[in-house]
Amino acid sequence: MTSAVIRSFRQAQQLREVFGPISDRLEAVERFIAKEFEAAQPLVAEVAGYVLSSGGKRIRPALVLLISRMLGAKGERDVRYGAVVEFIHSASLIHDDIIDESDLRRGKPTANHRWGNQVTVLVGDWLYTRSMSLCLEFGDVEIMRLLTAATLQMTEGEIMADRVRWRLDLAEDLYIDITRRKTAELFAAACALPALFQPATLHLTEPLADFGRDLGLCFQLVDDLLDFTATQSRLGKPVLADLREGRATLPIILLLPRLDRDQRARLDQVVSSGSFDAMSEEEVLELVRTSGVLDEVRRRATAQAELARHRLSGLPAGPERDALMRAATLLVTREM
Amino acid sequence: MTSAVIRSFRQAQQLREVFGPISDRLEAVERFIAKEFEAAQPLVAEVAGYVLSSGGKRIRPALVLLISRMLGAKGERDVRYGAVVEFIHSASLIHDDIIDESDLRRGKPTANHRWGNQVTVLVGDWLYTRSMSLCLEFGDVEIMRLLTAATLQMTEGEIMADRVRWRLDLAEDLYIDITRRKTAELFAAACALPALFQPATLHLTEPLADFGRDLGLCFQLVDDLLDFTATQSRLGKPVLADLREGRATLPIILLLPRLDRDQRARLDQVVSSGSFDAMSEEEVLELVRTSGVLDEVRRRATAQAELARHRLSGLPAGPERDALMRAATLLVTREM
Repeated sequence: MTSAVIRSFRQAQQLREVFGPISDRLEAVERFIAKEFEAAQPLVAEVAGYVLSSGGKRIRPALVLLISRMLGAKGERDVRYGAVVEFIHSASLIHDDIIDESDLRRGKPTANHRWGNQVTVLVGDWLYTRSMSLCLEFGDVEIMRLLTAATLQMTEGEIMADRVRWRLDLAEDLYIDITRRKTAELFAAACALPALFQPATLHLTEPLADFGRDLGLCFQLVDDLLDFTATQSRLGKPVLADLREGRATLPIILLLPRLDRDQRARLDQVVSSGSFDAMSEEEVLELVRTSGVLDEVRRRATAQAELARHRLSGLPAGPERDALMRAATLLVTREM
Repeated sequence: MTSAVIRSFRQAQQLREVFGPISDRLEAVERFIAKEFEAAQPLVAEVAGYVLSSGGKRIRPALVLLISRMLGAKGERDVRYGAVVEFIHSASLIHDDIIDESDLRRGKPTANHRWGNQVTVLVGDWLYTRSMSLCLEFGDVEIMRLLTAATLQMTEGEIMADRVRWRLDLAEDLYIDITRRKTAELFAAACALPALFQPATLHLTEPLADFGRDLGLCFQLVDDLLDFTATQSRLGKPVLADLREGRATLPIILLLPRLDRDQRARLDQVVSSGSFDAMSEEEVLELVRTSGVLDEVRRRATAQAELARHRLSGLPAGPERDALMRAATLLVTREM
């Protein structure tokens, strides 16, 4: 075993430890999801079950559960909404895979690769709609407002991302705005919604949303970074997948002003074609590594995590808040 | 002009007359939709605007508006929910087109043909999610329950339809169940939701849902029929499109027991391949026409419309109820 693989194992272990205080609730989320599928159409159960059991780290449900416990929430809504945010996240993954025509996610064939676009579009729709009806059973209108607003932002972010695909000249501000919508708003909603469980914690909605948004941004920055630093076996998908899909992420945006005219023209061809004919993968990786942009992105992700941790300072102290602090750190240092 | 085209024009005119009592409200729905798009992402506005301005007959909004007026509903919720049901319907059309890989709808290139699967999946998601947030602005939880339940049924119906694609041996019961889910449940929700606008009409929710369900079934039976009787210019898509997509509808299901072994085997090849190599289009049309199954389907659609009209008998009499009665008749006799 290489040291990198050992590190990766250790981090999975650490994540489990961070989520330790709510491991029983995480299991309850799994049971909740399994029960949902038992009651659903067999094909929904098959496809959605496949996607939802594909080794996701359940970060969003864990945030719902940790924050619910931190706020002293009683009852079973934490589990329900843990499942709901995972449903929404999975629906977006499923539709995203159709979009990208990607073949691999987390090292397994994507659902659309296996069942075709026909079924997977519909299973995504089912997950979105079912997540709404799960909110409705309890009549949680404010939580629905939060979640539909986040879902709209997510969808708009994906549409914006599609517009700038195959383009190298992406402004950093626009990239951050897209990332916030695509990833950070659902993190924000997951973190904020437990504050709506009881009147006494309503005033914490905004600070918790801010925490989630910062955490989500940090998460995505590291995700973009891993596309340049991880290997296929660890990431579960090929490295440089973003470039292959014509997506310029922050490392590329920061690299651009450091390139000469020729390098820039050849990198432009990579992004606009999604192939490495004009510039080899090795050359791209070499440029990214030696230019220092990876350090720069990691610095920004670290600052973002620091900001997230800072947001927690006004929230109830205790093992759950400690766990959230550690989770923020782990997200930055993760290699998976 | 052929007499068929004249008939088609006359029917469009009749439909406008039937919707006459609420023509001002229908225009308000159009304005509501236009305003939604003004506030949305430009690409959402472009794609969704394209789909929503593709000559849909606005039957579902018209039902919401007519029934709202019949029940004496005040305010602007009729217009809002008219737009919402059209959003949901359009989202399902958009995702349906991705599914079918069809190139034409209502005589125009489909959105996915023009913008690609990437954008159209997302615009469908946007319409679904936006329709939910439009309900949330007024906090109409019961209406959301109705609409999410209908959307879930619709999605499940589409998934079931996908499962039986390319198969000739489809039981009639299953076909009806799929049709009810795919089409009739959204009609039912559109008709029932105005009863939820005021406490005094709550007891009419069920009868109105029953009316809408019968009307929707009738609508779909005629739609299936038109695939065999209409020509491309009138229908806006090629005839026999269902067979081309491997979908056996009621005319085919009823035809089956009337075929000999050889015809059956060749028709099986048509459905399982979506091509007319084993049996020509002309032969299929000839068999369908001479066997009397088209008359049989039209008889059933007429009976369904009769049932729908019967459901109206307990509802407030007046010009709106008369219009609903005429709408049911028009749906059966329509040739577009």
